[in-house]
Amino acid sequence: MVTKANLRAQVTDGIVEAVLDELADVGFGRLSMDGVARRARAGKAALYRRWPSKQEMVLDVVTGLSVPMAATTPSGDLTADVATLVAGVDDWLTDARMSRILPDLLAEAMRNPDLATALTDRLGAARRGYGQAVIDAAIARGEVSSDVDSEYVLDLIAAPVFWRLCGRREHTGTAFLDRVVDSVLHALGVSGR
Amino acid sequence: MVTKANLRAQVTDGIVEAVLDELADVGFGRLSMDGVARRARAGKAALYRRWPSKQEMVLDVVTGLSVPMAATTPSGDLTADVATLVAGVDDWLTDARMSRILPDLLAEAMRNPDLATALTDRLGAARRGYGQAVIDAAIARGEVSSDVDSEYVLDLIAAPVFWRLCGRREHTGTAFLDRVVDSVLHALGVSGR
Repeated sequence: MVTKANLRAQVTDGIVEAVLDELADVGFGRLSMDGVARRARAGKAALYRRWPSKQEMVLDVVTGLSVPMAATTPSGDLTADVATLVAGVDDWLTDARMSRILPDLLAEAMRNPDLATALTDRLGAARRGYGQAVIDAAIARGEVSSDVDSEYVLDLIAAPVFWRLCGRREHTGTAFLDRVVDSVLHALGVSGR
Repeated sequence: MVTKANLRAQVTDGIVEAVLDELADVGFGRLSMDGVARRARAGKAALYRRWPSKQEMVLDVVTGLSVPMAATTPSGDLTADVATLVAGVDDWLTDARMSRILPDLLAEAMRNPDLATALTDRLGAARRGYGQAVIDAAIARGEVSSDVDSEYVLDLIAAPVFWRLCGRREHTGTAFLDRVVDSVLHALGVSGR
Protein backbone atom coordinates (compact mmCIF):
# COMPACT_ATOMS: atom_id res chain seq x y z
CA MET A 1 0.00 0.00 0.00
CA VAL A 2 1.17 3.51 -0.73
CA THR A 3 1.36 5.45 2.53
CA LYS A 4 0.68 9.16 2.86
CA ALA A 5 4.38 9.81 3.40
CA ASN A 6 5.64 8.21 0.22
CA LEU A 7 2.64 9.53 -1.67
CA ARG A 8 3.76 13.06 -0.79
CA ALA A 9 7.30 12.23 -1.85
CA GLN A 10 5.96 11.28 -5.27
CA VAL A 11 4.29 14.64 -5.75
CA THR A 12 7.46 16.68 -6.06
CA ASP A 13 6.46 17.76 -9.51
CA GLY A 14 5.66 21.48 -9.45
CA ILE A 15 3.16 21.30 -12.27
CA VAL A 16 1.24 18.45 -10.65
CA GLU A 17 1.19 20.45 -7.41
CA ALA A 18 -0.15 23.46 -9.29
CA VAL A 19 -2.91 21.39 -10.93
CA LEU A 20 -4.02 20.03 -7.53
CA ASP A 21 -3.87 23.44 -5.82
CA GLU A 22 -5.74 25.17 -8.62
CA LEU A 23 -8.35 22.41 -8.84
CA ALA A 24 -8.94 22.54 -5.07
CA ASP A 25 -9.22 26.33 -5.11
CA VAL A 26 -11.32 27.09 -8.19
CA GLY A 27 -12.80 23.74 -9.29
CA PHE A 28 -12.84 22.04 -12.67
CA GLY A 29 -15.25 24.52 -14.30
CA ARG A 30 -13.14 27.59 -13.66
CA LEU A 31 -9.73 25.89 -13.96
CA SER A 32 -7.74 27.05 -16.97
CA MET A 33 -4.42 26.01 -18.47
CA ASP A 34 -3.36 29.65 -18.02
CA GLY A 35 -4.17 29.57 -14.31
CA VAL A 36 -2.21 26.35 -13.79
CA ALA A 37 0.75 27.67 -15.80
CA ARG A 38 0.79 30.89 -13.77
CA ARG A 39 0.63 28.99 -10.50
CA ALA A 40 3.40 26.58 -11.60
CA ARG A 41 5.50 29.47 -12.95
CA ALA A 42 5.72 27.48 -16.15
CA GLY A 43 4.76 28.15 -19.75
CA LYS A 44 1.51 26.79 -21.18
CA ALA A 45 3.67 24.89 -23.69
CA ALA A 46 5.09 22.83 -20.81
CA LEU A 47 1.54 21.78 -19.89
CA TYR A 48 0.54 20.95 -23.46
CA ARG A 49 3.68 18.84 -23.88
CA ARG A 50 2.32 16.56 -21.15
CA TRP A 51 -1.42 16.72 -21.70
CA PRO A 52 -3.51 17.45 -24.80
CA SER A 53 -6.36 19.12 -22.87
CA LYS A 54 -7.51 20.40 -19.50
CA GLN A 55 -9.67 17.32 -18.94
CA GLU A 56 -6.81 14.96 -19.68
CA MET A 57 -4.52 16.94 -17.37
CA VAL A 58 -7.02 16.81 -14.51
CA LEU A 59 -7.79 13.12 -14.97
CA ASP A 60 -4.13 12.16 -15.20
CA VAL A 61 -3.19 14.11 -12.07
CA VAL A 62 -6.22 13.06 -10.01
CA THR A 63 -6.05 9.36 -10.92
CA GLY A 64 -2.27 9.37 -10.44
CA LEU A 65 -2.83 10.51 -6.87
CA SER A 66 -6.03 8.60 -6.09
CA VAL A 67 -5.67 5.12 -7.54
CA PRO A 68 -2.50 4.14 -5.60
CA MET A 69 -4.26 5.20 -2.37
CA ALA A 70 -6.75 2.34 -2.85
CA ALA A 71 -4.05 -0.27 -3.45
CA THR A 72 -4.55 -3.34 -1.25
CA THR A 73 -3.29 -6.89 -1.61
CA PRO A 74 -5.62 -9.53 -0.13
CA SER A 75 -3.90 -10.78 3.04
CA GLY A 76 -6.08 -13.77 3.86
CA ASP A 77 -7.72 -11.85 6.74
CA LEU A 78 -11.00 -10.45 5.43
CA THR A 79 -11.67 -8.08 8.34
CA ALA A 80 -8.17 -6.65 8.07
CA ASP A 81 -8.49 -6.27 4.31
CA VAL A 82 -11.85 -4.48 4.58
CA ALA A 83 -10.37 -2.20 7.26
CA THR A 84 -7.48 -1.39 4.91
CA LEU A 85 -9.88 -0.55 2.08
CA VAL A 86 -12.03 1.69 4.30
CA ALA A 87 -8.91 3.38 5.74
CA GLY A 88 -7.75 3.97 2.17
CA VAL A 89 -10.94 5.90 1.41
CA ASP A 90 -10.54 7.85 4.64
CA ASP A 91 -6.89 8.74 3.87
CA TRP A 92 -7.93 9.83 0.40
CA LEU A 93 -10.80 12.08 1.47
CA THR A 94 -9.19 13.57 4.57
CA ASP A 95 -6.54 14.99 2.25
CA ALA A 96 -7.29 18.73 2.30
CA ARG A 97 -7.16 19.08 -1.47
CA MET A 98 -8.87 15.83 -2.41
CA SER A 99 -11.81 16.55 -0.07
CA ARG A 100 -12.54 19.57 -2.28
CA ILE A 101 -11.50 18.07 -5.62
CA LEU A 102 -13.60 14.89 -5.57
CA PRO A 103 -16.98 16.52 -4.76
CA ASP A 104 -16.27 19.12 -7.43
CA LEU A 105 -15.48 16.47 -10.07
CA LEU A 106 -18.61 14.51 -9.13
CA ALA A 107 -20.74 17.65 -9.48
CA GLU A 108 -19.12 18.44 -12.82
CA ALA A 109 -19.62 14.85 -14.00
CA MET A 110 -23.40 15.21 -13.57
CA ARG A 111 -23.28 17.87 -16.31
CA ASN A 112 -20.40 16.56 -18.45
CA PRO A 113 -20.98 13.01 -19.78
CA ASP A 114 -17.48 12.81 -21.23
CA LEU A 115 -15.86 13.59 -17.88
CA ALA A 116 -18.33 11.20 -16.21
CA THR A 117 -17.27 8.28 -18.41
CA ALA A 118 -13.59 9.01 -17.90
CA LEU A 119 -14.01 9.24 -14.11
CA THR A 120 -15.92 5.95 -14.00
CA ASP A 121 -13.42 4.12 -16.21
CA ARG A 122 -10.13 5.50 -14.96
CA LEU A 123 -10.78 6.46 -11.33
CA GLY A 124 -13.79 4.49 -10.07
CA ALA A 125 -13.11 1.18 -11.80
CA ALA A 126 -9.42 1.26 -10.88
CA ARG A 127 -10.07 1.95 -7.20
CA ARG A 128 -12.95 -0.55 -7.02
CA GLY A 129 -10.76 -3.24 -8.60
CA TYR A 130 -8.75 -3.44 -5.38
CA GLY A 131 -11.92 -4.00 -3.36
CA GLN A 132 -13.17 -6.58 -5.84
CA ALA A 133 -9.89 -8.50 -5.46
CA VAL A 134 -10.43 -8.66 -1.68
CA ILE A 135 -13.99 -9.96 -2.21
CA ASP A 136 -12.84 -12.49 -4.82
CA ALA A 137 -10.12 -13.80 -2.50
CA ALA A 138 -12.69 -14.23 0.31
CA ILE A 139 -15.01 -16.09 -2.09
CA ALA A 140 -12.10 -18.31 -3.16
CA ARG A 141 -11.40 -19.12 0.52
CA GLY A 142 -15.08 -20.01 1.01
CA GLU A 143 -15.63 -17.21 3.54
CA VAL A 144 -18.06 -15.26 1.37
CA SER A 145 -20.84 -16.60 -0.85
CA SER A 146 -20.20 -16.32 -4.57
CA ASP A 147 -23.59 -14.68 -5.04
CA VAL A 148 -22.68 -11.72 -2.82
CA ASP A 149 -23.72 -8.31 -4.22
CA SER A 150 -20.18 -7.03 -4.82
CA GLU A 151 -21.39 -3.80 -6.33
CA TYR A 152 -23.26 -2.92 -3.15
CA VAL A 153 -20.34 -3.99 -0.96
CA LEU A 154 -17.94 -1.81 -2.94
CA ASP A 155 -20.37 1.12 -2.62
CA LEU A 156 -20.49 0.65 1.16
CA ILE A 157 -16.70 0.77 1.43
CA ALA A 158 -16.68 4.33 0.10
CA ALA A 159 -20.14 5.87 0.60
CA PRO A 160 -20.31 6.47 4.37
CA VAL A 161 -16.80 7.95 4.45
CA PHE A 162 -17.54 10.24 1.51
CA TRP A 163 -20.84 11.31 3.04
CA ARG A 164 -19.38 12.04 6.48
CA LEU A 165 -16.40 14.00 5.16
CA CYS A 166 -17.64 15.63 1.96
CA GLY A 167 -21.44 15.50 2.27
CA ARG A 168 -21.68 16.60 5.92
CA ARG A 169 -18.21 18.11 6.44
CA GLU A 170 -17.87 16.22 9.72
CA HIS A 171 -15.07 14.08 11.13
CA THR A 172 -14.46 10.38 10.79
CA GLY A 173 -12.17 8.61 13.34
CA THR A 174 -11.55 5.10 14.62
CA ALA A 175 -15.02 4.39 16.03
CA PHE A 176 -16.69 5.59 12.82
CA LEU A 177 -14.36 3.59 10.57
CA ASP A 178 -14.96 0.47 12.71
CA ARG A 179 -18.70 0.89 12.14
CA VAL A 180 -18.17 1.13 8.40
CA VAL A 181 -16.09 -2.07 8.46
CA ASP A 182 -18.86 -3.78 10.43
CA SER A 183 -21.47 -2.64 7.86
CA VAL A 184 -19.30 -3.92 5.00
CA LEU A 185 -18.77 -7.31 6.70
CA HIS A 186 -22.52 -7.57 7.28
CA ALA A 187 -23.14 -6.82 3.58
CA LEU A 188 -20.59 -9.55 2.78
CA GLY A 189 -22.72 -11.94 4.83
CA VAL A 190 -20.09 -12.52 7.50
CA SER A 191 -20.46 -11.54 11.14
CA GLY A 192 -18.49 -8.57 12.39
CA ARG A 193 -15.83 -8.45 15.06
CA MET B 1 -45.21 12.19 3.31
CA VAL B 2 -45.10 14.46 0.32
CA THR B 3 -45.33 12.40 -2.83
CA LYS B 4 -43.69 13.25 -6.12
CA ALA B 5 -47.05 14.16 -7.60
CA ASN B 6 -48.06 16.73 -5.01
CA LEU B 7 -44.47 17.96 -4.85
CA ARG B 8 -44.72 18.92 -8.51
CA ALA B 9 -48.06 20.57 -7.92
CA GLN B 10 -46.41 22.79 -5.30
CA VAL B 11 -43.80 24.03 -7.71
CA THR B 12 -46.11 26.05 -9.89
CA ASP B 13 -44.15 29.16 -9.12
CA GLY B 14 -42.32 30.26 -12.26
CA ILE B 15 -39.48 31.90 -10.36
CA VAL B 16 -38.87 28.82 -8.21
CA GLU B 17 -38.84 26.73 -11.39
CA ALA B 18 -36.32 29.10 -12.94
CA VAL B 19 -34.05 28.92 -9.87
CA LEU B 20 -34.10 25.11 -9.97
CA ASP B 21 -33.52 24.93 -13.72
CA GLU B 22 -30.72 27.46 -13.65
CA LEU B 23 -29.08 25.83 -10.63
CA ALA B 24 -29.22 22.40 -12.30
CA ASP B 25 -27.79 23.77 -15.54
CA VAL B 26 -25.01 26.11 -14.44
CA GLY B 27 -24.43 25.37 -10.74
CA PHE B 28 -24.25 27.68 -7.73
CA GLY B 29 -20.94 29.32 -8.70
CA ARG B 30 -22.10 30.53 -12.10
CA LEU B 31 -25.74 31.18 -11.16
CA SER B 32 -26.68 34.86 -11.23
CA MET B 33 -29.80 36.79 -10.29
CA ASP B 34 -29.76 38.08 -13.88
CA GLY B 35 -29.74 34.55 -15.28
CA VAL B 36 -32.66 33.50 -13.08
CA ALA B 37 -34.63 36.65 -13.92
CA ARG B 38 -34.07 36.09 -17.64
CA ARG B 39 -35.16 32.46 -17.38
CA ALA B 40 -38.25 33.35 -15.34
CA ARG B 41 -39.07 36.26 -17.67
CA ALA B 42 -39.26 38.39 -14.57
CA GLY B 43 -37.46 41.47 -13.38
CA LYS B 44 -34.58 41.25 -10.94
CA ALA B 45 -36.66 43.40 -8.57
CA ALA B 46 -39.17 40.52 -8.31
CA LEU B 47 -36.35 38.27 -7.11
CA TYR B 48 -34.99 40.75 -4.60
CA ARG B 49 -38.47 41.29 -3.18
CA ARG B 50 -38.42 37.64 -2.11
CA TRP B 51 -34.77 37.05 -1.31
CA PRO B 52 -32.00 39.42 -0.17
CA SER B 53 -29.22 37.47 -1.93
CA LYS B 54 -28.40 34.67 -4.32
CA GLN B 55 -27.42 32.36 -1.44
CA GLU B 56 -30.68 33.00 0.40
CA MET B 57 -32.65 32.41 -2.80
CA VAL B 58 -30.91 29.09 -3.46
CA LEU B 59 -31.22 27.87 0.13
CA ASP B 60 -34.87 28.82 0.35
CA VAL B 61 -35.77 27.10 -2.91
CA VAL B 62 -33.66 23.97 -2.32
CA THR B 63 -34.76 23.43 1.29
CA GLY B 64 -38.37 24.16 0.33
CA LEU B 65 -38.17 21.29 -2.14
CA SER B 66 -35.92 18.92 -0.18
CA VAL B 67 -37.05 18.98 3.43
CA PRO B 68 -40.67 17.89 2.83
CA MET B 69 -39.33 14.92 0.79
CA ALA B 70 -37.77 13.51 4.00
CA ALA B 71 -40.97 13.86 6.02
CA THR B 72 -41.85 10.63 7.84
CA THR B 73 -44.03 10.01 10.87
CA PRO B 74 -42.94 7.01 12.97
CA SER B 75 -45.52 4.29 12.34
CA GLY B 76 -44.54 1.80 15.02
CA ASP B 77 -42.99 -0.50 12.39
CA LEU B 78 -39.24 0.16 12.37
CA THR B 79 -38.48 -1.69 9.13
CA ALA B 80 -41.27 0.14 7.33
CA ASP B 81 -40.13 3.50 8.71
CA VAL B 82 -36.51 2.91 7.67
CA ALA B 83 -37.71 1.86 4.21
CA THR B 84 -39.72 5.10 3.98
CA LEU B 85 -36.68 7.18 4.95
CA VAL B 86 -34.43 5.42 2.43
CA ALA B 87 -37.10 5.75 -0.29
CA GLY B 88 -37.31 9.45 0.56
CA VAL B 89 -33.60 9.87 -0.19
CA ASP B 90 -34.02 7.89 -3.41
CA ASP B 91 -37.01 9.99 -4.55
CA TRP B 92 -35.03 13.14 -3.77
CA LEU B 93 -31.90 12.19 -5.66
CA THR B 94 -33.54 10.49 -8.63
CA ASP B 95 -35.15 13.87 -9.37
CA ALA B 96 -33.33 15.00 -12.52
CA ARG B 97 -32.61 18.48 -11.19
CA MET B 98 -31.81 17.57 -7.60
CA SER B 99 -29.29 14.90 -8.70
CA ARG B 100 -27.29 17.75 -10.21
CA ILE B 101 -28.07 20.44 -7.64
CA LEU B 102 -27.08 18.56 -4.48
CA PRO B 103 -23.58 17.43 -5.60
CA ASP B 104 -22.94 20.96 -6.84
CA LEU B 105 -23.97 22.51 -3.51
CA LEU B 106 -21.82 20.01 -1.59
CA ALA B 107 -18.82 20.85 -3.78
CA GLU B 108 -19.45 24.56 -3.31
CA ALA B 109 -19.84 24.10 0.45
CA MET B 110 -16.29 22.69 0.67
CA ARG B 111 -15.06 26.13 -0.45
CA ASN B 112 -17.72 28.38 1.06
CA PRO B 113 -18.01 28.05 4.87
CA ASP B 114 -21.05 30.30 5.03
CA LEU B 115 -22.98 28.15 2.55
CA ALA B 116 -21.71 25.05 4.38
CA THR B 117 -23.17 26.21 7.70
CA ALA B 118 -26.48 27.14 6.12
CA LEU B 119 -26.74 23.77 4.33
CA THR B 120 -25.98 21.87 7.54
CA ASP B 121 -28.44 23.87 9.64
CA ARG B 122 -31.32 24.29 7.24
CA LEU B 123 -31.13 21.27 4.92
CA GLY B 124 -29.14 18.52 6.67
CA ALA B 125 -30.47 19.00 10.21
CA ALA B 126 -34.07 19.35 9.02
CA ARG B 127 -33.94 16.18 6.91
CA ARG B 128 -32.05 14.21 9.57
CA GLY B 129 -34.60 15.24 12.21
CA TYR B 130 -37.16 12.95 10.57
CA GLY B 131 -34.75 10.00 10.78
CA GLN B 132 -33.91 10.84 14.38
CA ALA B 133 -37.62 10.79 15.26
CA VAL B 134 -37.87 7.25 13.83
CA ILE B 135 -34.86 6.15 15.89
CA ASP B 136 -36.18 7.83 19.05
CA ALA B 137 -39.56 6.13 18.64
CA ALA B 138 -37.83 2.73 18.27
CA ILE B 139 -35.77 3.42 21.40
CA ALA B 140 -38.95 4.41 23.27
CA ARG B 141 -40.54 1.09 22.21
CA GLY B 142 -37.47 -0.78 23.47
CA GLU B 143 -36.60 -2.10 20.01
CA VAL B 144 -33.33 -0.21 19.71
CA SER B 145 -30.72 0.40 22.40
CA SER B 146 -30.51 3.97 23.70
CA ASP B 147 -26.75 3.97 23.11
CA VAL B 148 -27.14 3.40 19.36
CA ASP B 149 -24.88 5.60 17.19
CA SER B 150 -27.68 7.67 15.65
CA GLU B 151 -25.28 9.85 13.73
CA TYR B 152 -23.89 6.82 11.91
CA VAL B 153 -27.36 5.38 11.33
CA LEU B 154 -28.57 8.66 9.82
CA ASP B 155 -25.47 8.74 7.59
CA LEU B 156 -26.25 5.22 6.36
CA ILE B 157 -29.79 6.18 5.39
CA ALA B 158 -28.46 8.68 2.85
CA ALA B 159 -24.88 7.78 1.95
CA PRO B 160 -25.27 4.64 -0.21
CA VAL B 161 -28.10 6.20 -2.22
CA PHE B 162 -26.16 9.42 -2.78
CA TRP B 163 -23.04 7.47 -3.75
CA ARG B 164 -24.86 5.17 -6.18
CA LEU B 165 -26.79 7.97 -7.90
CA CYS B 166 -24.52 11.01 -7.67
CA GLY B 167 -21.07 9.53 -6.98
CA ARG B 168 -21.23 6.69 -9.49
CA ARG B 169 -24.11 7.84 -11.72
CA GLU B 170 -25.62 4.35 -11.58
CA HIS B 171 -29.16 3.17 -10.87
CA THR B 172 -30.78 2.25 -7.59
CA GLY B 173 -33.93 0.05 -7.63
CA THR B 174 -35.81 -2.20 -5.21
CA ALA B 175 -33.05 -4.74 -4.55
CA PHE B 176 -30.53 -2.00 -3.86
CA LEU B 177 -32.87 -0.06 -1.57
CA ASP B 178 -33.67 -3.30 0.34
CA ARG B 179 -29.94 -3.77 0.94
CA VAL B 180 -29.65 -0.24 2.27
CA VAL B 181 -32.57 -0.87 4.66
CA ASP B 182 -30.87 -4.08 5.81
CA SER B 183 -27.61 -2.19 6.46
CA VAL B 184 -29.44 0.50 8.43
CA LEU B 185 -31.30 -2.10 10.54
CA HIS B 186 -27.99 -3.84 11.24
CA ALA B 187 -26.47 -0.52 12.34
CA LEU B 188 -29.51 -0.06 14.60
CA GLY B 189 -28.64 -3.40 16.19
CA VAL B 190 -31.79 -5.15 14.99
CA SER B 191 -31.84 -8.08 12.61
CA GLY B 192 -32.98 -7.47 9.07
CA ARG B 193 -35.81 -9.04 7.21
